[in-house]
Amino acid sequence: MAETYPKETPNTVNRYKHQATYDVSTIHTIVNTTPVLHVSFVPDPSTPVPVVLPMIGQIGHYPSDHEPHCYLHGYVSSRLMNLAASPPGIPLCVAATKLDGLVLTLTPNTHNYNYRSAILHGHGTIVDNDEEKLWAMQLVTNSVVPARYENTRVPPDNAEMQSTRILKMRIESASGKVREGIPEDERKDMKREDVLDSVWTGVIPVYERLEEPVGGPYNRVKEVPEHVRRFVDGENARRWTYAVEAVRKPAPVKRVKKENDEG
Amino acid sequence: MAETYPKETPNTVNRYKHQATYDVSTIHTIVNTTPVLHVSFVPDPSTPVPVVLPMIGQIGHYPSDHEPHCYLHGYVSSRLMNLAASPPGIPLCVAATKLDGLVLTLTPNTHNYNYRSAILHGHGTIVDNDEEKLWAMQLVTNSVVPARYENTRVPPDNAEMQSTRILKMRIESASGKVREGIPEDERKDMKREDVLDSVWTGVIPVYERLEEPVGGPYNRVKEVPEHVRRFVDGENARRWTYAVEAVRKPAPVKRVKKENDEG
Repeated sequence: MAETYPKETPNTVNRYKHQATYDVSTIHTIVNTTPVLHVSFVPDPSTPVPVVLPMIGQIGHYPSDHEPHCYLHGYVSSRLMNLAASPPGIPLCVAATKLDGLVLTLTPNTHNYNYRSAILHGHGTIVDNDEEKLWAMQLVTNSVVPARYENTRVPPDNAEMQSTRILKMRIESASGKVREGIPEDERKDMKREDVLDSVWTGVIPVYERLEEPVGGPYNRVKEVPEHVRRFVDGENARRWTYAVEAVRKPAPVKRVKKENDEG
Repeated sequence: MAETYPKETPNTVNRYKHQATYDVSTIHTIVNTTPVLHVSFVPDPSTPVPVVLPMIGQIGHYPSDHEPHCYLHGYVSSRLMNLAASPPGIPLCVAATKLDGLVLTLTPNTHNYNYRSAILHGHGTIVDNDEEKLWAMQLVTNSVVPARYENTRVPPDNAEMQSTRILKMRIESASGKVREGIPEDERKDMKREDVLDSVWTGVIPVYERLEEPVGGPYNRVKEVPEHVRRFVDGENARRWTYAVEAVRKPAPVKRVKKENDEG
Protein backbone atom coordinates (compact mmCIF):
# COMPACT_ATOMS: atom_id res chain seq x y z
CA MET A 1 0.00 0.00 0.00
CA ALA A 2 1.12 3.54 -0.77
CA GLU A 3 2.55 5.51 2.15
CA THR A 4 0.51 8.62 1.41
CA TYR A 5 -3.06 9.21 0.26
CA PRO A 6 -3.34 11.03 -3.07
CA LYS A 7 -3.92 14.80 -2.87
CA GLU A 8 -7.14 14.93 -4.83
CA THR A 9 -10.54 16.49 -4.37
CA PRO A 10 -12.45 16.01 -2.06
CA ASN A 11 -9.72 15.50 0.52
CA THR A 12 -7.31 18.26 -0.46
CA VAL A 13 -6.61 20.60 2.44
CA ASN A 14 -6.34 24.14 1.15
CA ARG A 15 -6.41 25.97 4.43
CA TYR A 16 -3.32 26.06 6.65
CA LYS A 17 -1.60 23.75 4.18
CA HIS A 18 1.54 23.46 6.31
CA GLN A 19 -0.52 21.64 8.93
CA ALA A 20 -1.87 19.12 6.44
CA THR A 21 -0.79 15.53 6.18
CA TYR A 22 -1.59 12.76 3.73
CA ASP A 23 0.62 10.25 5.50
CA VAL A 24 -1.22 6.94 5.79
CA SER A 25 0.33 5.96 9.11
CA THR A 26 -0.39 9.35 10.74
CA ILE A 27 -4.01 9.34 9.54
CA HIS A 28 -4.61 5.73 10.62
CA THR A 29 -3.12 6.40 14.06
CA ILE A 30 -5.36 9.44 14.60
CA VAL A 31 -8.46 7.41 13.66
CA ASN A 32 -7.44 4.35 15.67
CA THR A 33 -6.72 6.27 18.88
CA THR A 34 -9.93 8.33 18.81
CA PRO A 35 -12.59 6.68 21.01
CA VAL A 36 -15.56 8.29 19.22
CA LEU A 37 -15.61 8.86 15.46
CA HIS A 38 -18.17 11.15 13.81
CA VAL A 39 -19.73 9.51 10.77
CA SER A 40 -21.78 11.47 8.26
CA PHE A 41 -24.14 10.27 5.55
CA VAL A 42 -27.15 11.53 3.59
CA PRO A 43 -30.27 9.53 4.56
CA ASP A 44 -32.36 10.68 1.59
CA PRO A 45 -30.22 10.95 -1.55
CA SER A 46 -32.79 13.31 -3.13
CA THR A 47 -32.21 16.08 -0.55
CA PRO A 48 -28.79 17.42 0.54
CA VAL A 49 -29.48 17.01 4.28
CA PRO A 50 -26.69 15.23 6.16
CA VAL A 51 -26.75 13.36 9.45
CA VAL A 52 -23.76 12.91 11.79
CA LEU A 53 -23.64 9.98 14.21
CA PRO A 54 -21.06 9.16 16.87
CA MET A 55 -19.70 5.65 16.31
CA ILE A 56 -16.80 3.48 17.46
CA GLY A 57 -14.41 2.53 14.68
CA GLN A 58 -11.07 1.17 13.69
CA ILE A 59 -9.04 0.96 10.53
CA GLY A 60 -7.85 -2.60 10.06
CA HIS A 61 -6.63 -4.88 7.30
CA TYR A 62 -8.75 -8.01 6.94
CA PRO A 63 -6.38 -10.75 5.76
CA SER A 64 -8.12 -11.53 2.48
CA ASP A 65 -8.52 -7.85 1.46
CA HIS A 66 -6.10 -5.86 -0.67
CA GLU A 67 -6.07 -2.86 1.64
CA PRO A 68 -7.20 -1.65 5.09
CA HIS A 69 -10.79 -0.51 5.59
CA CYS A 70 -12.50 1.49 8.31
CA TYR A 71 -14.84 -0.70 10.41
CA LEU A 72 -17.63 1.19 12.17
CA HIS A 73 -19.79 -0.06 14.99
CA GLY A 74 -22.86 1.72 16.31
CA TYR A 75 -26.53 2.10 15.73
CA VAL A 76 -27.32 1.23 12.12
CA SER A 77 -30.92 2.18 11.30
CA SER A 78 -32.89 0.24 8.73
CA ARG A 79 -32.64 3.30 6.48
CA LEU A 80 -28.85 3.22 6.66
CA MET A 81 -28.96 -0.59 6.31
CA ASN A 82 -30.86 -0.33 3.03
CA LEU A 83 -28.57 2.34 1.63
CA ALA A 84 -25.48 0.31 2.58
CA ALA A 85 -26.90 -3.05 1.51
CA SER A 86 -25.35 -3.38 -1.93
CA PRO A 87 -22.07 -2.26 -3.56
CA PRO A 88 -20.70 0.36 -3.87
CA GLY A 89 -22.63 1.24 -0.70
CA ILE A 90 -23.40 4.62 0.80
CA PRO A 91 -21.09 7.66 0.65
CA LEU A 92 -19.67 8.27 4.12
CA CYS A 93 -17.39 10.81 5.67
CA VAL A 94 -15.62 9.90 8.91
CA ALA A 95 -13.95 12.48 11.15
CA ALA A 96 -11.58 11.84 14.06
CA THR A 97 -10.41 14.76 16.18
CA LYS A 98 -8.15 14.82 19.22
CA LEU A 99 -7.72 17.99 21.27
CA ASP A 100 -4.19 18.35 22.65
CA GLY A 101 -4.12 21.86 24.04
CA LEU A 102 -5.64 25.33 24.23
CA VAL A 103 -3.27 27.85 22.66
CA LEU A 104 -3.79 31.27 24.26
CA THR A 105 -2.32 34.20 22.35
CA LEU A 106 -2.36 37.99 22.40
CA THR A 107 -5.63 38.50 20.54
CA PRO A 108 -8.75 36.35 19.97
CA ASN A 109 -8.10 35.79 16.26
CA THR A 110 -4.76 34.06 16.82
CA HIS A 111 -6.09 31.74 19.53
CA ASN A 112 -5.89 28.14 18.45
CA TYR A 113 -6.00 24.52 19.51
CA ASN A 114 -3.22 22.01 19.46
CA TYR A 115 -5.01 19.11 17.82
CA ARG A 116 -4.82 16.14 15.51
CA SER A 117 -7.65 15.50 13.07
CA ALA A 118 -8.31 13.09 10.22
CA ILE A 119 -11.08 12.91 7.64
CA LEU A 120 -11.84 9.80 5.58
CA HIS A 121 -14.06 9.74 2.48
CA GLY A 122 -15.46 6.61 0.92
CA HIS A 123 -18.35 4.23 0.61
CA GLY A 124 -19.68 1.95 3.32
CA THR A 125 -21.34 -1.44 3.10
CA ILE A 126 -22.65 -3.81 5.77
CA VAL A 127 -20.36 -6.73 6.65
CA ASP A 128 -22.41 -9.86 5.97
CA ASN A 129 -19.68 -12.47 6.17
CA ASP A 130 -19.70 -13.94 9.70
CA GLU A 131 -15.99 -14.61 9.77
CA GLU A 132 -15.14 -11.02 8.90
CA LYS A 133 -17.80 -9.73 11.29
CA LEU A 134 -16.25 -11.71 14.14
CA TRP A 135 -12.82 -10.38 13.19
CA ALA A 136 -14.16 -6.80 13.17
CA MET A 137 -15.94 -7.26 16.53
CA GLN A 138 -12.65 -8.33 18.05
CA LEU A 139 -10.79 -5.43 16.39
CA VAL A 140 -13.30 -2.87 17.67
CA THR A 141 -13.56 -4.32 21.22
CA ASN A 142 -9.79 -4.41 21.61
CA SER A 143 -9.56 -0.82 20.41
CA VAL A 144 -11.46 0.24 23.54
CA VAL A 145 -9.21 -1.77 25.90
CA PRO A 146 -6.45 -3.94 24.40
CA ALA A 147 -6.96 -7.68 25.02
CA ARG A 148 -10.44 -7.05 26.37
CA TYR A 149 -12.12 -9.38 23.85
CA GLU A 150 -10.25 -12.48 24.96
CA ASN A 151 -10.79 -11.59 28.62
CA THR A 152 -14.60 -11.75 28.34
CA ARG A 153 -17.25 -14.35 27.55
CA VAL A 154 -16.63 -15.15 23.87
CA PRO A 155 -17.42 -16.08 21.18
CA PRO A 156 -20.64 -14.12 20.58
CA ASP A 157 -23.65 -16.41 20.33
CA ASN A 158 -25.98 -16.55 17.33
CA ALA A 159 -28.31 -13.85 18.65
CA GLU A 160 -25.35 -11.52 19.21
CA MET A 161 -23.94 -12.21 15.76
CA GLN A 162 -27.35 -11.46 14.27
CA SER A 163 -27.91 -8.23 16.17
CA THR A 164 -24.45 -6.76 15.55
CA ARG A 165 -24.13 -4.52 12.53
CA ILE A 166 -20.70 -3.50 11.28
CA LEU A 167 -20.22 -0.94 8.53
CA LYS A 168 -17.13 -1.42 6.40
CA MET A 169 -15.87 1.66 4.65
CA ARG A 170 -13.54 1.71 1.68
CA ILE A 171 -11.12 4.60 2.22
CA GLU A 172 -11.17 6.36 -1.15
CA SER A 173 -9.40 9.49 0.03
CA ALA A 174 -8.17 10.86 3.33
CA SER A 175 -6.39 13.77 4.88
CA GLY A 176 -5.19 14.87 8.27
CA LYS A 177 -4.21 18.04 10.07
CA VAL A 178 -1.88 18.40 13.01
CA ARG A 179 -1.22 21.60 14.99
CA GLU A 180 1.28 21.46 17.78
CA GLY A 181 3.61 23.92 19.42
CA ILE A 182 3.88 27.25 21.10
CA PRO A 183 1.59 30.26 20.61
CA GLU A 184 2.00 32.28 17.45
CA ASP A 185 0.99 35.92 17.01
CA GLU A 186 1.08 38.43 14.21
CA ARG A 187 3.76 41.06 13.82
CA LYS A 188 1.35 43.91 14.53
CA ASP A 189 0.75 42.64 18.09
CA MET A 190 4.32 41.45 18.70
CA LYS A 191 5.38 45.09 18.32
CA ARG A 192 3.00 46.38 20.98
CA GLU A 193 4.72 46.63 24.35
CA ASP A 194 1.44 47.36 26.15
CA VAL A 195 -0.09 44.15 24.80
CA LEU A 196 2.99 42.02 25.49
CA ASP A 197 3.16 43.41 29.02
CA SER A 198 -0.46 42.66 29.87
CA VAL A 199 -1.65 39.52 28.04
CA TRP A 200 -0.53 36.09 29.26
CA THR A 201 0.33 33.77 26.36
CA GLY A 202 0.87 30.08 26.60
CA VAL A 203 -0.69 26.67 26.20
CA ILE A 204 -2.99 24.65 28.45
CA PRO A 205 -2.23 21.00 27.55
CA VAL A 206 -5.33 18.79 27.34
CA TYR A 207 -5.65 15.02 27.34
CA GLU A 208 -8.38 12.46 27.87
CA ARG A 209 -7.50 11.01 31.27
CA LEU A 210 -8.52 7.54 32.43
CA GLU A 211 -9.41 7.51 36.10
CA GLU A 212 -9.04 4.64 38.57
CA PRO A 213 -11.28 1.73 37.42
CA VAL A 214 -14.35 1.17 39.61
CA GLY A 215 -15.69 -2.39 39.99
CA GLY A 216 -19.42 -2.76 39.29
CA PRO A 217 -22.05 -4.20 41.65
CA TYR A 218 -21.90 -7.78 40.33
CA ASN A 219 -18.12 -7.86 39.87
CA ARG A 220 -16.52 -10.79 41.71
CA VAL A 221 -12.94 -10.40 40.46
CA LYS A 222 -11.13 -8.67 43.33
CA GLU A 223 -8.07 -7.27 41.54
CA VAL A 224 -8.36 -4.99 38.53
CA PRO A 225 -6.98 -7.36 35.89
CA GLU A 226 -3.58 -6.87 34.31
CA HIS A 227 -4.94 -6.00 30.84
CA VAL A 228 -7.03 -3.14 32.33
CA ARG A 229 -4.32 -1.92 34.71
CA ARG A 230 -1.66 -1.86 31.99
CA PHE A 231 -4.00 0.00 29.64
CA VAL A 232 -4.94 2.71 32.16
CA ASP A 233 -1.38 3.35 33.35
CA GLY A 234 0.19 3.12 29.91
CA GLU A 235 -2.38 5.32 28.17
CA ASN A 236 -2.30 8.04 30.82
CA ALA A 237 1.48 8.25 30.59
CA ARG A 238 1.40 8.28 26.78
CA ARG A 239 -1.39 10.86 26.50
CA TRP A 240 0.11 13.15 29.13
CA THR A 241 3.48 13.03 27.43
CA TYR A 242 2.00 13.85 24.01
CA ALA A 243 -0.02 16.84 25.25
CA VAL A 244 2.81 18.29 27.31
CA GLU A 245 5.51 17.71 24.68
CA ALA A 246 3.29 19.21 21.96
CA VAL A 247 3.50 22.53 23.82
CA ARG A 248 7.25 22.77 23.61
CA LYS A 249 7.56 22.22 19.87
CA PRO A 250 8.27 25.17 17.60
CA ALA A 251 5.28 27.03 16.22
CA PRO A 252 4.09 25.92 12.82
CA VAL A 253 5.37 27.82 9.80
CA LYS A 254 3.49 31.08 9.35
CA ARG A 255 0.07 30.38 8.00
CA VAL A 256 -0.97 31.51 4.56
CA LYS A 257 -3.77 34.07 4.70
CA LYS A 258 -6.16 33.07 1.95
CA GLU A 259 -9.76 32.99 3.05
CA ASN A 260 -11.25 32.36 -0.35
CA ASP A 261 -9.53 29.23 -1.51
CA GLU A 262 -11.50 26.04 -1.92
CA GLY A 263 -11.68 23.62 1.01
CA MET B 1 -38.86 29.30 24.39
CA ALA B 2 -40.16 25.75 24.79
CA GLU B 3 -38.30 23.60 27.31
CA THR B 4 -38.10 20.60 25.00
CA TYR B 5 -37.47 20.17 21.30
CA PRO B 6 -40.31 18.51 19.41
CA LYS B 7 -40.00 14.75 18.80
CA GLU B 8 -40.20 14.84 15.03
CA THR B 9 -38.22 13.37 12.20
CA PRO B 10 -35.28 13.75 11.63
CA ASN B 11 -34.30 14.06 15.26
CA THR B 12 -36.37 11.27 16.77
CA VAL B 13 -34.20 8.77 18.62
CA ASN B 14 -35.56 5.29 18.09
CA ARG B 15 -32.69 3.30 19.45
CA TYR B 16 -32.21 3.02 23.22
CA LYS B 17 -35.14 5.39 23.69
CA HIS B 18 -34.71 5.46 27.47
CA GLN B 19 -31.38 7.22 26.98
CA ALA B 20 -32.87 9.92 24.74
CA THR B 21 -33.48 13.49 25.76
CA TYR B 22 -35.20 16.40 24.05
CA ASP B 23 -34.59 18.74 26.96
CA VAL B 24 -33.38 22.09 25.63
CA SER B 25 -31.16 22.85 28.59
CA THR B 26 -29.47 19.41 28.55
CA ILE B 27 -28.82 19.60 24.80
CA HIS B 28 -27.47 23.15 24.95
CA THR B 29 -25.16 22.27 27.85
CA ILE B 30 -23.72 19.29 25.97
CA VAL B 31 -23.03 21.45 22.90
CA ASN B 32 -21.65 24.37 24.90
CA THR B 33 -19.21 22.27 26.93
CA THR B 34 -17.82 20.32 23.97
CA PRO B 35 -14.58 21.93 22.74
CA VAL B 36 -14.81 20.51 19.21
CA LEU B 37 -18.11 20.14 17.35
CA HIS B 38 -18.43 18.02 14.21
CA VAL B 39 -20.34 19.85 11.49
CA SER B 40 -21.64 18.09 8.42
CA PHE B 41 -22.90 19.49 5.11
CA VAL B 42 -23.26 18.42 1.49
CA PRO B 43 -20.88 20.45 -0.72
CA ASP B 44 -22.56 19.53 -4.01
CA PRO B 45 -26.35 19.34 -3.61
CA SER B 46 -26.60 17.15 -6.71
CA THR B 47 -24.68 14.25 -5.13
CA PRO B 48 -25.36 12.75 -1.67
CA VAL B 49 -21.73 12.99 -0.53
CA PRO B 50 -21.31 14.59 2.90
CA VAL B 51 -18.33 16.30 4.49
CA VAL B 52 -17.65 16.53 8.24
CA LEU B 53 -15.49 19.33 9.63
CA PRO B 54 -14.33 19.92 13.21
CA MET B 55 -15.36 23.41 14.32
CA ILE B 56 -15.63 25.45 17.52
CA GLY B 57 -19.18 26.45 18.37
CA GLN B 58 -21.59 27.76 20.93
CA ILE B 59 -25.32 28.07 21.24
CA GLY B 60 -26.19 31.61 22.25
CA HIS B 61 -29.13 33.98 22.15
CA TYR B 62 -28.35 37.20 20.27
CA PRO B 63 -30.43 39.90 21.95
CA SER B 64 -32.49 40.91 18.91
CA ASP B 65 -33.31 37.30 17.91
CA HIS B 66 -36.39 35.34 18.94
CA GLU B 67 -34.45 32.22 19.89
CA PRO B 68 -30.92 30.90 20.45
CA HIS B 69 -28.81 29.83 17.45
CA CYS B 70 -25.67 27.76 17.13
CA TYR B 71 -22.65 29.91 16.14
CA LEU B 72 -19.84 28.01 14.43
CA HIS B 73 -16.30 29.17 13.90
CA GLY B 74 -13.76 27.42 11.74
CA TYR B 75 -12.54 27.20 8.21
CA VAL B 76 -15.33 28.26 5.86
CA SER B 77 -14.40 27.44 2.26
CA SER B 78 -15.68 29.57 -0.61
CA ARG B 79 -17.89 26.62 -1.56
CA LEU B 80 -19.51 26.59 1.87
CA MET B 81 -19.64 30.41 1.80
CA ASN B 82 -21.64 30.38 -1.43
CA LEU B 83 -24.06 27.73 -0.20
CA ALA B 84 -24.60 29.62 3.05
CA ALA B 85 -24.76 33.07 1.47
CA SER B 86 -28.52 33.52 1.26
CA PRO B 87 -31.53 32.39 3.32
CA PRO B 88 -32.53 29.75 4.25
CA GLY B 89 -28.85 28.78 3.99
CA ILE B 90 -27.26 25.35 3.84
CA PRO B 91 -28.57 22.25 5.64
CA LEU B 92 -26.21 21.43 8.49
CA CYS B 93 -25.98 18.73 11.11
CA VAL B 94 -23.92 19.43 14.23
CA ALA B 95 -22.82 16.70 16.62
CA ALA B 96 -21.33 17.11 20.09
CA THR B 97 -20.11 14.05 21.99
CA LYS B 98 -18.50 13.76 25.39
CA LEU B 99 -16.99 10.48 26.57
CA ASP B 100 -17.45 9.93 30.32
CA GLY B 101 -16.36 6.35 30.87
CA LEU B 102 -15.58 2.92 29.44
CA VAL B 103 -18.17 0.41 30.66
CA LEU B 104 -16.61 -3.07 30.78
CA THR B 105 -19.07 -5.94 31.03
CA LEU B 106 -19.12 -9.74 30.82
CA THR B 107 -19.25 -10.04 27.04
CA PRO B 108 -18.20 -7.78 24.13
CA ASN B 109 -21.78 -7.06 22.99
CA THR B 110 -22.80 -5.46 26.29
CA HIS B 111 -19.70 -3.25 26.51
CA ASN B 112 -20.66 0.41 26.36
CA TYR B 113 -19.56 3.98 26.92
CA ASN B 114 -20.84 6.40 29.50
CA TYR B 115 -21.34 9.45 27.29
CA ARG B 116 -23.39 12.52 26.52
CA SER B 117 -24.19 13.36 22.92
CA ALA B 118 -26.30 15.93 21.13
CA ILE B 119 -27.27 16.35 17.49
CA LEU B 120 -28.63 19.58 15.99
CA HIS B 121 -30.33 19.85 12.61
CA GLY B 122 -30.96 23.10 10.80
CA HIS B 123 -29.80 25.59 8.21
CA GLY B 124 -26.71 27.77 8.43
CA THR B 125 -26.04 31.22 7.03
CA ILE B 126 -22.98 33.48 7.24
CA VAL B 127 -23.19 36.28 9.83
CA ASP B 128 -22.74 39.50 7.85
CA ASN B 129 -23.76 42.00 10.51
CA ASP B 130 -20.60 43.29 12.21
CA GLU B 131 -22.27 43.85 15.55
CA GLU B 132 -23.54 40.26 15.72
CA LYS B 133 -20.21 38.95 14.42
CA LEU B 134 -18.37 40.74 17.21
CA TRP B 135 -20.85 39.36 19.74
CA ALA B 136 -20.35 35.82 18.38
CA MET B 137 -16.54 36.16 18.39
CA GLN B 138 -16.73 37.06 22.07
CA LEU B 139 -19.14 34.18 22.77
CA VAL B 140 -16.91 31.64 21.03
CA THR B 141 -13.61 32.92 22.53
CA ASN B 142 -15.04 32.87 26.04
CA SER B 143 -16.31 29.33 25.51
CA VAL B 144 -12.69 28.18 25.24
CA VAL B 145 -11.61 29.99 28.43
CA PRO B 146 -14.16 32.15 30.27
CA ALA B 147 -13.27 35.88 30.30
CA ARG B 148 -10.46 35.28 27.84
CA TYR B 149 -11.81 37.78 25.30
CA GLU B 150 -11.63 40.78 27.64
CA ASN B 151 -8.17 39.71 28.82
CA THR B 152 -6.62 39.99 25.33
CA ARG B 153 -6.01 42.72 22.77
CA VAL B 154 -9.51 43.68 21.63
CA PRO B 155 -11.47 44.78 19.71
CA PRO B 156 -10.56 42.95 16.51
CA ASP B 157 -9.29 45.33 13.83
CA ASN B 158 -10.83 45.69 10.37
CA ALA B 159 -8.66 43.00 8.80
CA GLU B 160 -9.63 40.56 11.57
CA MET B 161 -13.32 41.37 11.22
CA GLN B 162 -13.06 40.79 7.48
CA SER B 163 -11.20 37.50 7.71
CA THR B 164 -13.43 35.96 10.40
CA ARG B 165 -16.31 33.87 9.14
CA ILE B 166 -19.05 32.83 11.53
CA LEU B 167 -21.78 30.39 10.53
CA LYS B 168 -25.10 30.90 12.30
CA MET B 169 -27.32 27.86 12.44
CA ARG B 170 -31.02 27.92 13.09
CA ILE B 171 -31.78 24.92 15.33
CA GLU B 172 -34.78 23.34 13.62
CA SER B 173 -34.67 20.11 15.58
CA ALA B 174 -32.38 18.54 18.13
CA SER B 175 -31.94 15.49 20.30
CA GLY B 176 -29.55 14.18 22.89
CA LYS B 177 -28.51 10.89 24.43
CA VAL B 178 -27.04 10.31 27.85
CA ARG B 179 -25.71 6.99 29.19
CA GLU B 180 -24.41 6.91 32.72
CA GLY B 181 -24.16 4.29 35.40
CA ILE B 182 -22.88 0.88 36.25
CA PRO B 183 -22.32 -2.04 33.86
CA GLU B 184 -25.36 -3.92 32.64
CA ASP B 185 -25.40 -7.49 31.37
CA GLU B 186 -27.98 -9.88 30.00
CA ARG B 187 -29.65 -12.57 32.05
CA LYS B 188 -27.97 -15.38 30.12
CA ASP B 189 -24.51 -14.27 31.32
CA MET B 190 -25.64 -13.21 34.81
CA LYS B 191 -26.58 -16.87 35.40
CA ARG B 192 -23.15 -18.21 34.48
CA GLU B 193 -20.99 -18.69 37.58
CA ASP B 194 -17.88 -19.41 35.47
CA VAL B 195 -18.27 -16.08 33.65
CA LEU B 196 -19.04 -14.08 36.79
CA ASP B 197 -16.03 -15.64 38.53
CA SER B 198 -13.58 -14.83 35.77
CA VAL B 199 -14.53 -11.57 34.03
CA TRP B 200 -13.87 -8.23 35.75
CA THR B 201 -16.77 -5.80 35.26
CA GLY B 202 -16.71 -2.12 36.04
CA VAL B 203 -16.21 1.35 34.64
CA ILE B 204 -13.08 3.31 33.78
CA PRO B 205 -14.12 6.98 34.22
CA VAL B 206 -12.79 9.29 31.50
CA TYR B 207 -12.52 13.07 31.40
CA GLU B 208 -10.69 15.67 29.37
CA ARG B 209 -8.07 16.93 31.81
CA LEU B 210 -6.46 20.36 31.63
CA GLU B 211 -2.78 20.23 32.56
CA GLU B 212 -0.70 22.97 34.19
CA PRO B 213 -0.58 25.99 31.82
CA VAL B 214 2.82 26.53 30.18
CA GLY B 215 3.89 30.10 29.35
CA GLY B 216 5.03 30.61 25.76
CA PRO B 217 8.39 32.00 24.62
CA TYR B 218 7.26 35.64 24.32
CA ASN B 219 5.08 35.64 27.42
CA ARG B 220 6.05 38.43 29.86
CA VAL B 221 3.24 38.00 32.41
CA LYS B 222 4.87 36.07 35.25
CA GLU B 223 1.83 34.66 37.05
CA VAL B 224 -0.76 32.55 35.27
CA PRO B 225 -3.68 35.00 35.37
CA GLU B 226 -6.69 34.50 37.60
CA HIS B 227 -9.14 33.82 34.72
CA VAL B 228 -6.92 30.98 33.44
CA ARG B 229 -6.12 29.55 36.87
CA ARG B 230 -9.78 29.57 37.94
CA PHE B 231 -10.82 27.88 34.69
CA VAL B 232 -8.23 25.08 34.90
CA ASP B 233 -8.88 24.26 38.56
CA GLY B 234 -12.66 24.61 38.37
CA GLU B 235 -13.04 22.60 35.16
CA ASN B 236 -10.83 19.75 36.34
CA ALA B 237 -12.81 19.42 39.56
CA ARG B 238 -16.14 19.59 37.69
CA ARG B 239 -15.15 17.12 34.97
CA TRP B 240 -13.58 14.65 37.41
CA THR B 241 -16.69 14.76 39.59
CA TYR B 242 -19.03 14.16 36.65
CA ALA B 243 -17.07 11.17 35.29
CA VAL B 244 -16.64 9.54 38.69
CA GLU B 245 -20.21 10.15 39.86
CA ALA B 246 -21.61 8.88 36.55
CA VAL B 247 -20.17 5.46 37.43
CA ARG B 248 -22.14 5.12 40.64
CA LYS B 249 -25.57 5.84 39.21
CA PRO B 250 -27.99 2.98 38.59
CA ALA B 251 -27.84 1.27 35.22
CA PRO B 252 -30.24 2.61 32.62
CA VAL B 253 -33.57 0.82 32.25
CA LYS B 254 -33.18 -2.39 30.27
CA ARG B 255 -32.75 -1.53 26.66
CA VAL B 256 -35.31 -2.51 24.07
CA LYS B 257 -33.91 -4.95 21.53
CA LYS B 258 -35.16 -3.72 18.19
CA GLU B 259 -32.53 -3.51 15.52
CA ASN B 260 -34.86 -2.69 12.69
CA ASP B 261 -36.63 0.43 13.84
CA GLU B 262 -36.01 3.67 12.03
CA GLY B 263 -33.16 5.87 13.28
